[in-house]
Amino acid sequence: MRITFLLFTMVLTACQSTKPRPDDVPTASNQTPGEVVAATTAADWRVIDPDNTLYLSLPGGRVVIELYPEMAPIHVANTRALVRAGVFDNTSFYRVLDGFVAQGGPLFESEAEQPALADGAYEIAAEFTRQRALPDRYLGFDQQDGYAGETGFLDSAAVGRDLDSGESWLLHCYGALAMGRTNEPDSGGVALYIINGPAQRYLDRNTTVFGRVIDGMAHVQALHRTADLTGALDPGEHNVIQAITVAADVPVEQRIQLQVLDSASPLFQNYLAARKNRSGDWFIHQHDHIDACGVPIPTRIQAD
Amino acid sequence: MRITFLLFTMVLTACQSTKPRPDDVPTASNQTPGEVVAATTAADWRVIDPDNTLYLSLPGGRVVIELYPEMAPIHVANTRALVRAGVFDNTSFYRVLDGFVAQGGPLFESEAEQPALADGAYEIAAEFTRQRALPDRYLGFDQQDGYAGETGFLDSAAVGRDLDSGESWLLHCYGALAMGRTNEPDSGGVALYIINGPAQRYLDRNTTVFGRVIDGMAHVQALHRTADLTGALDPGEHNVIQAITVAADVPVEQRIQLQVLDSASPLFQNYLAARKNRSGDWFIHQHDHIDACGVPIPTRIQAD
Repeated sequence: MRITFLLFTMVLTACQSTKPRPDDVPTASNQTPGEVVAATTAADWRVIDPDNTLYLSLPGGRVVIELYPEMAPIHVANTRALVRAGVFDNTSFYRVLDGFVAQGGPLFESEAEQPALADGAYEIAAEFTRQRALPDRYLGFDQQDGYAGETGFLDSAAVGRDLDSGESWLLHCYGALAMGRTNEPDSGGVALYIINGPAQRYLDRNTTVFGRVIDGMAHVQALHRTADLTGALDPGEHNVIQAITVAADVPVEQRIQLQVLDSASPLFQNYLAARKNRSGDWFIHQHDHIDACGVPIPTRIQAD
Repeated sequence: MRITFLLFTMVLTACQSTKPRPDDVPTASNQTPGEVVAATTAADWRVIDPDNTLYLSLPGGRVVIELYPEMAPIHVANTRALVRAGVFDNTSFYRVLDGFVAQGGPLFESEAEQPALADGAYEIAAEFTRQRALPDRYLGFDQQDGYAGETGFLDSAAVGRDLDSGESWLLHCYGALAMGRTNEPDSGGVALYIINGPAQRYLDRNTTVFGRVIDGMAHVQALHRTADLTGALDPGEHNVIQAITVAADVPVEQRIQLQVLDSASPLFQNYLAARKNRSGDWFIHQHDHIDACGVPIPTRIQAD
């Protein structure tokens, strides 16, 4: 039998290389990414704050989203308030374009339909970038790309930073949660969208990214694609959002005990180094580079 | 009504800007990508060679793949021969990892099960890169990234090029079709995989990319994700590949009359320029950059 069941598994689980490494390929680790993750201890994993966790209930299952209040405090607080008011329950993903975004939320016919909340709940201030310095636990990775002078990680989020101004922003990576708007910057509120294909980095600094799907993207991918840009859904292909809830509002025993590899952990740096230059017998070409949006953030179900 | 149906459409279909453009933002075009496409004529569109077109029949619908014989002649010829021998019919996608790849094809229990073909049909030579100069119609876009000295386009494929050696290769963008292998470079043959999430550029030059999905990725995304890296499918979640056929073998009236914006057309350069610096009233931040894998290749159904 020549064609084995393990053909492509090698990419992810190749054994540690026994070959000498070329001197001109810098790396902090001869481990594979999988080996780095296997070597972690409980201290390297982070439990997400249930106040900053959304459960998006779709017919296919539960999608878990981490929110980033330090990067977009207004969007996070506003979304949490709207979620608690039930604004997203029994709504839909009304515009799902393959390889681009799934956009959903309520479609109000009139302002009278909008639950009354604090001022501005439906036209909140843009938070395209953060002006202040990033929290100490931010991990800059000295990895510039065409869109940012530096990329790095803050919790489960991929971040871009302008090294001159110090301004930072969240990247439109696969699974990023952001807010749709009209031509007016301060016009967001309920038009949630999730990147469902290649990174859409040209949208960086043009909309507010304020969360990321950390589990359950397959359920987002199972949504019916809408026929065209006008968002018309074919009859019978309505993409129902059953509910969005804040994890903190769900009884503890019903929460998913999901942990995320802590980007502030030293092991995370090993993980990035292992991805930057892949070791193991499988890899032939090493790139000495990583694309911040190409780095999957490891998760696990809490062991205890 | 403040929350309009058009919220995010602006990204794709914003009207031509009436604002003066800053002098320091170079662009060949003040048009939006959509305006460039709307201004094309029949000469700007390319009909894909039916010999280089595969139809992948999934329960959700037909996936159309363009093959690139100039970049991977052995893989294209071998796959076409295996397709014509029916090797992929009634097989499955047995490893589908969200945000990574869908891998499928036959899983032979023994060599006796393998249809006899030309020597090497199941262990073909690696074609990770092309050594010869690229065809004249290749469009280099002077857009380096961390993985390639230059990126560009050849037909519907995104290409990377080493400017010193002249070596070129196809990029692991969303929708790319490539060949799984064991640790041996020349071990591919039937383990097809399709990138179903962010670009996996670290795989560039490590496997042979030889095609790209140009229509129907939503059907690939609708596949059930497999539970883990061993590829075990949950019972009842078998991702059937009904058949793969070469379009040339299908009666003309049953073919999809799909056209692709020709990357050798001058309009394609306008399209890239329009994506590099997005115009229109919606965009606030322009990046003067494009990620080759973030460029969707426009397609249309043949008008006549």
